[in-house]
Amino acid sequence: MQTFRPRVALQWQLARHRTADEPLAEWIPATVPGAVQLDWAAAHGLPDFTVGRNVELWDGLEDFHWTYRSRIDAVPARRPGERMYLRIDGVDYAAEVFVGSEQVGTMRGVQTPLAVDITDRLTPGVELRVRVHPAPKSHDRARDRTQANRTCKPAVSYEWDFHPRLIPLGLWRGAWLEIRPAIHFATLPEVEYRLSDDLKKARGQVNVTLSRPAGPGTRLRWTCSSPAGAVDLLVSVPADAPGPELTVPFALDPVTLWWPHDQGTPALYHNVVELLGPDGQVLDRAEVRTGFRRVRLVMAPDQWKSPTEFPKSRSLPPITFEVNGRALFVKGTNWVCPDIFPGAVTPDRYAEQLRLVREANLTLVRVWGGAIAPPEEFHDLCDELGLLVWQEFPLACNSYPDDPEYLAELDRESRSLIRRLRRHASVVLWCGGNELFNFWSGMTEQSLALRLLNRNCYELDPTRPFLATAPLEGMGHGHYLFRDPGTGAECWSLFQHAHCTAYSEFGVPASPSAETLRRILPPAEVWPPRPGTSWQLHHAFGAWMPSSHLYLEEIEYYFGPSGTLEQLVERGQLLQSAGLQGLFEEVRRQKPVASLALNWCFNEPWPAAANNSLVAWPAEPKPALAAVAQACRPTLASARVPRFSWRPGETFTAELWLLHDGPAPAPGVTIRAWLEIDSRRHPLGEWIAADAPANTNVAGPRVEAVLPPWHEPRFTLHLAASGRPEWDSHYTFIQARAGREEGGRTVEIRAGTTNF
Amino acid sequence: MQTFRPRVALQWQLARHRTADEPLAEWIPATVPGAVQLDWAAAHGLPDFTVGRNVELWDGLEDFHWTYRSRIDAVPARRPGERMYLRIDGVDYAAEVFVGSEQVGTMRGVQTPLAVDITDRLTPGVELRVRVHPAPKSHDRARDRTQANRTCKPAVSYEWDFHPRLIPLGLWRGAWLEIRPAIHFATLPEVEYRLSDDLKKARGQVNVTLSRPAGPGTRLRWTCSSPAGAVDLLVSVPADAPGPELTVPFALDPVTLWWPHDQGTPALYHNVVELLGPDGQVLDRAEVRTGFRRVRLVMAPDQWKSPTEFPKSRSLPPITFEVNGRALFVKGTNWVCPDIFPGAVTPDRYAEQLRLVREANLTLVRVWGGAIAPPEEFHDLCDELGLLVWQEFPLACNSYPDDPEYLAELDRESRSLIRRLRRHASVVLWCGGNELFNFWSGMTEQSLALRLLNRNCYELDPTRPFLATAPLEGMGHGHYLFRDPGTGAECWSLFQHAHCTAYSEFGVPASPSAETLRRILPPAEVWPPRPGTSWQLHHAFGAWMPSSHLYLEEIEYYFGPSGTLEQLVERGQLLQSAGLQGLFEEVRRQKPVASLALNWCFNEPWPAAANNSLVAWPAEPKPALAAVAQACRPTLASARVPRFSWRPGETFTAELWLLHDGPAPAPGVTIRAWLEIDSRRHPLGEWIAADAPANTNVAGPRVEAVLPPWHEPRFTLHLAASGRPEWDSHYTFIQARAGREEGGRTVEIRAGTTNF
Repeated sequence: MQTFRPRVALQWQLARHRTADEPLAEWIPATVPGAVQLDWAAAHGLPDFTVGRNVELWDGLEDFHWTYRSRIDAVPARRPGERMYLRIDGVDYAAEVFVGSEQVGTMRGVQTPLAVDITDRLTPGVELRVRVHPAPKSHDRARDRTQANRTCKPAVSYEWDFHPRLIPLGLWRGAWLEIRPAIHFATLPEVEYRLSDDLKKARGQVNVTLSRPAGPGTRLRWTCSSPAGAVDLLVSVPADAPGPELTVPFALDPVTLWWPHDQGTPALYHNVVELLGPDGQVLDRAEVRTGFRRVRLVMAPDQWKSPTEFPKSRSLPPITFEVNGRALFVKGTNWVCPDIFPGAVTPDRYAEQLRLVREANLTLVRVWGGAIAPPEEFHDLCDELGLLVWQEFPLACNSYPDDPEYLAELDRESRSLIRRLRRHASVVLWCGGNELFNFWSGMTEQSLALRLLNRNCYELDPTRPFLATAPLEGMGHGHYLFRDPGTGAECWSLFQHAHCTAYSEFGVPASPSAETLRRILPPAEVWPPRPGTSWQLHHAFGAWMPSSHLYLEEIEYYFGPSGTLEQLVERGQLLQSAGLQGLFEEVRRQKPVASLALNWCFNEPWPAAANNSLVAWPAEPKPALAAVAQACRPTLASARVPRFSWRPGETFTAELWLLHDGPAPAPGVTIRAWLEIDSRRHPLGEWIAADAPANTNVAGPRVEAVLPPWHEPRFTLHLAASGRPEWDSHYTFIQARAGREEGGRTVEIRAGTTNF
Repeated sequence: MQTFRPRVALQWQLARHRTADEPLAEWIPATVPGAVQLDWAAAHGLPDFTVGRNVELWDGLEDFHWTYRSRIDAVPARRPGERMYLRIDGVDYAAEVFVGSEQVGTMRGVQTPLAVDITDRLTPGVELRVRVHPAPKSHDRARDRTQANRTCKPAVSYEWDFHPRLIPLGLWRGAWLEIRPAIHFATLPEVEYRLSDDLKKARGQVNVTLSRPAGPGTRLRWTCSSPAGAVDLLVSVPADAPGPELTVPFALDPVTLWWPHDQGTPALYHNVVELLGPDGQVLDRAEVRTGFRRVRLVMAPDQWKSPTEFPKSRSLPPITFEVNGRALFVKGTNWVCPDIFPGAVTPDRYAEQLRLVREANLTLVRVWGGAIAPPEEFHDLCDELGLLVWQEFPLACNSYPDDPEYLAELDRESRSLIRRLRRHASVVLWCGGNELFNFWSGMTEQSLALRLLNRNCYELDPTRPFLATAPLEGMGHGHYLFRDPGTGAECWSLFQHAHCTAYSEFGVPASPSAETLRRILPPAEVWPPRPGTSWQLHHAFGAWMPSSHLYLEEIEYYFGPSGTLEQLVERGQLLQSAGLQGLFEEVRRQKPVASLALNWCFNEPWPAAANNSLVAWPAEPKPALAAVAQACRPTLASARVPRFSWRPGETFTAELWLLHDGPAPAPGVTIRAWLEIDSRRHPLGEWIAADAPANTNVAGPRVEAVLPPWHEPRFTLHLAASGRPEWDSHYTFIQARAGREEGGRTVEIRAGTTNF
């Protein structure tokens, strides 16, 4: 997705000031894209914020004014008629832009870029300046996320249960000079289409907006190459319309569909759109890719049957994704932000993490509304990898007001985002934001912000589904732990008794490696973990509940006291692995009533000492990532087991299942189940599973065995599919500790800082 | 709400034809407003459709083309510069409009009027023609409401459980010539405002659109008189803006608020807006009324507290009306259409029925989406009477498609409706339509029709709440009977065990008077009532369930066989009265969790032999209307009694309550309760009720007594409030029949024709 225009890189410097007009004294080197804090830290030797309590030294820089400057020593050469544009692809969060003493633009909002023709203002020695405002804050609020309650700046950086308070500011996307042809594409061409009912043909048009109406003799040439590389369409039409807008209708028959990676090939067509001059020379050129697919949110089978009783309410809202006519069971994950400073995330880092998503057999990323909507390269990668994207607007856990000023900002930012992302096949859902219809947000369907977003999506992108928020009724968020210290309930049991249509957030936390912990925690604080130390600042204590996210008492509940950091980490990671394995497989068993399982969360913006993430910062997989990959294989033998810890003499039970989400039938198979206890095999039974139709599970028998006395702390349930080793599964269980407390106890839930 | 322009009435004739181009032979007199069927019936002697099966003779006329004509013998006189407009305020459903051979307009949709300047086309003898299309029908569908699934024509007339199949067509609103000044108001001026947070001040603007920009020296004069009649504002400003749009800002301090009748005075300001020429002469003049109020949908207290368990869903959507800062408990009713032919309903008939609504202590009318949105005079009356209006768009119990053609029609019709009604203080809610999120409709929040309606309401009328449909989750519709023949459950018990936030439809059916039945039923069919006769065509059998709406077996269940028509009618009417009394009072007891009780339905479009209506066609109150009026008094003594029929020796129980919805506190009172059985008084107890704060009920004790043997079939519970006879209540009960069957039996519910 690009144009091919010469760029002139700019060297930027940065100065900090207390008021907008304070004379600027000290200039420091600036990296663009980046953030003012990173430049300031480099220039002034601020210590690594990921270590200990250093992050506190970074606090407050967002309350200053900051000015970027770049001096044009020599005006770049250009050919006759060409224009010089200043392009700034994103400012965090508001700025005025000057060339010399003249203001040429105003920016507000991370998603709204600036491209301004400054040809006539460029003189040797002229200075470009970008004057960045302090971060928006509702100063009548406490020092928490509610300070972001009337801005489109992502709320997460104002402090969250996995994000320290550190609020980035500055040019988070590129800023450079672009040499444009005299007449050029004002925006990237767009391929708009509808598929025929049988999904075999596409009809639509290419929409082009020029910088001005093209003259006689100009032509528009569109070359559309199929995913296999052949030129499918080559269209050349006169471009001299009365206005600057051109449309080229087309029909593709047959069309190769784009599929998410677990259903087929994410086939992308390659479009080259060129504006040709009277003598055939290429005036401007753009490339865009198109994945042809149809997406809908549909009702699960039987869902219309309820409710039955009088007085009668509505049926639940649909949340089953249907792609190209196939109702999917979607396994996915919540994407937060891979770094506190989004301007510091390179395309390689997105690629590294998204490859991990796909390798974990996950198909959807929910780009959570508390964090920033990532830049173009992210969605390009999702298109390529066949990942589905649930894209949220920047609202999360706040009550965003019916205020004209805020609504105008949201209008602008949401339109920018919709226009930028609607070309991506991967994006399958717009969502207003996170948990807005719960008490900690306090919004409702009457909130004008959500009515505005629905309006903008309807107008600019009507064929893509829109949800006001998640969860809606029928959908569930949480729990975020292995065992609730208040009720004593285990996460498996909670889900086995739940009846949600979609589980759009659930998590079990764990620590990163001991090595990482030793890096981020001061040596004196590393052992034992204690509240009030850097452990707490890194979310191991009091992040949400008093015990979260380390849940030291719960680890002790299952395993007894840990002797070393390594032992503690391994135990917590086992709980995370076992927990998520059980949860993903349990939601899959609830298909088709349930059709969506998204764990909270995939990644994290800095190294937490404990967190629900599968991948620790910057890209360190926890063992649970492999467990999730196992649980999310398209087809596997699976067991529903009521709990994690057992005592000798108890009857161990397991319901056997063949889980199958694949688009083709799975042949029947014989599944043997046994327990491996103290290295001895205890057979549980053998089940001849029938053929599984496409995207259909097969429920098997319940097997059971009385547990013998044993010695080792753990034992394993094995399921082996004859001739299909890739479907084999195994589950780890532990021996219940003698004399442990079994009951629940009451725990204070701090509503103010919750992120359910 | 009017302008003061000379009108020239037109005499219309009508001709029927099979194709659009068939030569027109027979012309019959036409009444405008009206319907082609009424004119045809008058000319051709069709029998009264309200009697027997005559309605079947009226069927099919809607499938013809019809042409109206009116000859202009002499062109009306006008002063220099004045223009002649042809105004057609509504066509049902689509037409082309001609002056002579020239087409001057196209109309489509009952809510979209036409006003076209035909000055230059008026010559002596010229003929105006309106060529009306056959009624829109999805001909691939069965002969039922689904034929209206891609039109904004109200679905009810395609057949409903209270409406025979009879589909009106033609000019249902006035059609005349209007002489307009050379420069005039193109639309009625609008007063747009916001109230201050303390509701004491209004700020806003008067928006005026002229037919063309006004010249130098012209002025706009706005006189705003307070509800008391004093001139509050007199503003005169130059009108010579560059465009045709003028705005006059204003502030009113203090402002007198408009209130629904049970909360205060429905105070209306009177605005006279005049366009003045250079020498002060009045060029055009319009009058509009304004009621200043603020309305919101808010959460009931405590509603944010749920849900509590994990996985956690959303809180229920808000459905409590807050008017001028006061959260209200709303008692109201469902308004259908007072006639099969809306063009035949005079303002007097609206006035008569709306007065009955108010006299029944009802505050809200839900203008149900299956029927037509009534014309201006209806909403004018609601403004005056202090009635709240829940206004639906024309979608009901169908799956309206994501189809560009249908969406374009809905877009136009909804914009017309919103622009017409947004000036009315009484209108407090836009709703997408009836029961769209249930299986018999099959729409969801992803349906583009509902997203379009949200968009239009947001854009044109953002301060008024919008619901996609009713019921939403938490809200309930039904039941529609006294006792369910399938389950044996009585309506009181169903509601005593329900926990809805709003009961937006519930009903108990009854017959109209025996006199009316004898009028509409052929003598041979009057007694006994039997399926397959005119009783059935008039909805007494098989209207929804096999037994509905007469429920002969249920009347027999309680009372035994009826000997006469009069006895049967009286018994059914008693069930309706007792049922609705109990239901309204039960919902009131559930305040503040519940905040809305709307019975189904207030009126009916023709004389049903049995129906849930409180008022039989044309305006005959059933006894239940008085029972509802009693149950909906602002303050009353009330009893929660578990059931309707009792046996000697059983313990009769009643929970005592003081129900109070008034805006001021109600003083404490002593309430005595006794049973009157066989004319003897059996004391149940005395309760000294505490003061009731504003809009707050007081729960009292449970009283009980063992029932003695008795003779008369009925007995009465009396509640007497000392010194407050206007709060007294009484309830009728009956003696259970010996040996009656008590259990439930299974009944087939015919999904296809249901109107839950």
